[in-house]
Amino acid sequence: MINERKMMNTVELIRKKRNREELTSEEISQLINGYTKGTVPDYQFSSFLMAGFLNGFTEAETTALTSAMLYSGKVLDLSAIKGIKVDKHSTGGVGDKTSLIIAPIAAAAGVPVPMISGRALGHTGGTLDKLESIPGFRTDLNLAEYKKVLKKCSAVLIGQTKEIAPADKGIYALRDVTATVESIPLITASIMSKKLAEGIDALVLDVKTGNGAFMRSYSDAQKLAASLVSTAKRFNKKVIAYITDMNQPLGRFTGNWPEVYESLLVLQGYHSPRLTELSIELAGAMIFLGGKAKNLSEGRFIAAEMITSGKAFDKFLQIAKLQGANIKYLENPDSYPKPRYSAEYLAARDGYINYDCFQSGMAAVEAGAGRLTKDDKPDKKAGIITGKLKGEKVKKGDRLASVFGDNKEKVLRAMQRMPLAITISAKPVPKDKLIRKVIS
Amino acid sequence: MINERKMMNTVELIRKKRNREELTSEEISQLINGYTKGTVPDYQFSSFLMAGFLNGFTEAETTALTSAMLYSGKVLDLSAIKGIKVDKHSTGGVGDKTSLIIAPIAAAAGVPVPMISGRALGHTGGTLDKLESIPGFRTDLNLAEYKKVLKKCSAVLIGQTKEIAPADKGIYALRDVTATVESIPLITASIMSKKLAEGIDALVLDVKTGNGAFMRSYSDAQKLAASLVSTAKRFNKKVIAYITDMNQPLGRFTGNWPEVYESLLVLQGYHSPRLTELSIELAGAMIFLGGKAKNLSEGRFIAAEMITSGKAFDKFLQIAKLQGANIKYLENPDSYPKPRYSAEYLAARDGYINYDCFQSGMAAVEAGAGRLTKDDKPDKKAGIITGKLKGEKVKKGDRLASVFGDNKEKVLRAMQRMPLAITISAKPVPKDKLIRKVIS
Repeated sequence: MINERKMMNTVELIRKKRNREELTSEEISQLINGYTKGTVPDYQFSSFLMAGFLNGFTEAETTALTSAMLYSGKVLDLSAIKGIKVDKHSTGGVGDKTSLIIAPIAAAAGVPVPMISGRALGHTGGTLDKLESIPGFRTDLNLAEYKKVLKKCSAVLIGQTKEIAPADKGIYALRDVTATVESIPLITASIMSKKLAEGIDALVLDVKTGNGAFMRSYSDAQKLAASLVSTAKRFNKKVIAYITDMNQPLGRFTGNWPEVYESLLVLQGYHSPRLTELSIELAGAMIFLGGKAKNLSEGRFIAAEMITSGKAFDKFLQIAKLQGANIKYLENPDSYPKPRYSAEYLAARDGYINYDCFQSGMAAVEAGAGRLTKDDKPDKKAGIITGKLKGEKVKKGDRLASVFGDNKEKVLRAMQRMPLAITISAKPVPKDKLIRKVIS
Repeated sequence: MINERKMMNTVELIRKKRNREELTSEEISQLINGYTKGTVPDYQFSSFLMAGFLNGFTEAETTALTSAMLYSGKVLDLSAIKGIKVDKHSTGGVGDKTSLIIAPIAAAAGVPVPMISGRALGHTGGTLDKLESIPGFRTDLNLAEYKKVLKKCSAVLIGQTKEIAPADKGIYALRDVTATVESIPLITASIMSKKLAEGIDALVLDVKTGNGAFMRSYSDAQKLAASLVSTAKRFNKKVIAYITDMNQPLGRFTGNWPEVYESLLVLQGYHSPRLTELSIELAGAMIFLGGKAKNLSEGRFIAAEMITSGKAFDKFLQIAKLQGANIKYLENPDSYPKPRYSAEYLAARDGYINYDCFQSGMAAVEAGAGRLTKDDKPDKKAGIITGKLKGEKVKKGDRLASVFGDNKEKVLRAMQRMPLAITISAKPVPKDKLIRKVIS
């Protein structure tokens, strides 16, 4: 009888959302907690998700969703660690390895960076998979170890733990199979509940837009950025959001170890077009929000200084060592085992370079760098190096990309996709602006 | 791997509906069959239902839904029985007992009536519960017995069997707990799949509107009627739909045996206001569609003749006997056991009668005539007799209703609801037209 009453009560809440009425925060936490505890079954929650997907959620509802998901688990208390704790979140892209670069930069500048990252998803890479290509690097620290590393070297990079926003995991899995993923309020709650649980004071957001991003259109990216910023503010967090271009891979390297390799290059002062620029920008924002610079411009200046002084590179080695890594490959990256197979993708004619960045990401996945099914183990060495930027003029026979990995068949399959990923246009192709908007 | 692919394919279909694209009939039957077989899980199907609820279904999609649900089970072949087989379906109301009256009328006029009915639901009564108040009356005939009775006396009245549209049962149960009941295309598919499975050639529809109907607004009732008519036509069935008033109980009696009692009165020629009128109208339409009258007007004439000649009453006895009933109570209804408790509801002041017909239905349910939970057994004798029609002028102390049943507490609880069900207005209350629209 009680169960029947509960179930009917859930129906009333679904009906309310279906009828475009605003749910109270109590009603939203009743749904989220019920689903997490199992008293609201999958089939009612998915019906609620679809109603919310189609009818939308107000700002207050989005905050309530975030809050309910946040308090489904532990919210870390980092008050014992001095300073303004700052993290960065990217909505995901191809070749996007900025976390590996900016966490050590900001930490070197004295900003504590408690960073909890995810794995590769679809055509995009994941910070965890990249870190795990470094032998010994442990991304599965428990929360006590996490605090210890953060305190010792001002940065720590781990994966999602079971204690953090457990509601999100189940809800995300359900959204994935019920066509309710691409909802800005639901994406906002998923991202923010996990980030807020880290115990941060401030957050830098990198919302990607373009044909390699989840938010392909600029207008969707703007909506998501605005939603993330307003939600962060409702939780009294300092926040800056960037909308950045993802119409071509970020930097030259795509793949797990290949991206660690490129990050080490950037941290050592080599200039990687667009990647260095974005890393300095995001790290500068973290330094500013962390109270170590008067403004964004000074933040960028300090970020660059952390690179040229070698402090950021040393910081990366320190973090890696504290998280169990064998740093010999970081000190001497060229000693890392080489992939067994590689192929060159050459320009078939003269013209201007264009990218389908989604296809670029999928080519790297096919070479072995990502996961086609949940149980796939990525090939650490597999990936792609691209030689040209979008809009560059090339001649027939120019090397456009190298594709490599340990599995010959996969490398060949990735090569077959390259003509979809990198095309040559007879007419000039515009060079896209990297940083399209800053919202704070 | 196959399951994963299937699941992802289902996601694509949900996404299509979510994005307001039209699904093909193959895609719809893939979803319905998948759900019925268990390869499409509850949580995906409920997400699809909510997307369809909010984005709607086209006429072609509604037909495909109906067809998939229809062919989830057996479609009866009544070709061995001569004549145009005609059934009637009502969307449900309070005191609506026309099935008990019009099936014998049409059968007496030579029209075969294969009728599969439902049980009481919420504030509305169910033909099966009424028939089962007749001692011995079997509503659970198997399909062979069903055909046999139909052949022998040209009418048969049974309940839903497992073989008939099994998809509907699971889908309806899921809609009930996911706030996706009130969707005109889904209601259409649910009704039509069951009716078409009976093996009928023609159908008379009675779509109720008003505060005692599921479709409260006239505009919703019109939409549902139009959707039912167009779907029936797409299956090449002859069809006439009536939109009729449900702002007051139909006839004087509400309850299981009480409604059988009133039906017997009408079949014997007593005039029950509005009930007799609607019964003649619907039976006339059945006789016309069944090819036994040139037009609706002649149909009504023949229907009335079947009553005055006594043929319809005799037909009812014949059907009941063939379905196992002890007909002594039908021949002598006053010998039926009397309810143990009854109470009179009197006018508290002078004025004009008004009804909240939903509350009237709920009062009868509370007296014991219906089900508050799925496992409740209705009290066969419980019910209400109303003395006045909507708009009638009454004086303080006039008897407005009798409430009765075997359980004293329930009768008292029903009495407490009566002031909500029947009110007295100082100003004149309009008398509603019974038959609001005919669509064919």
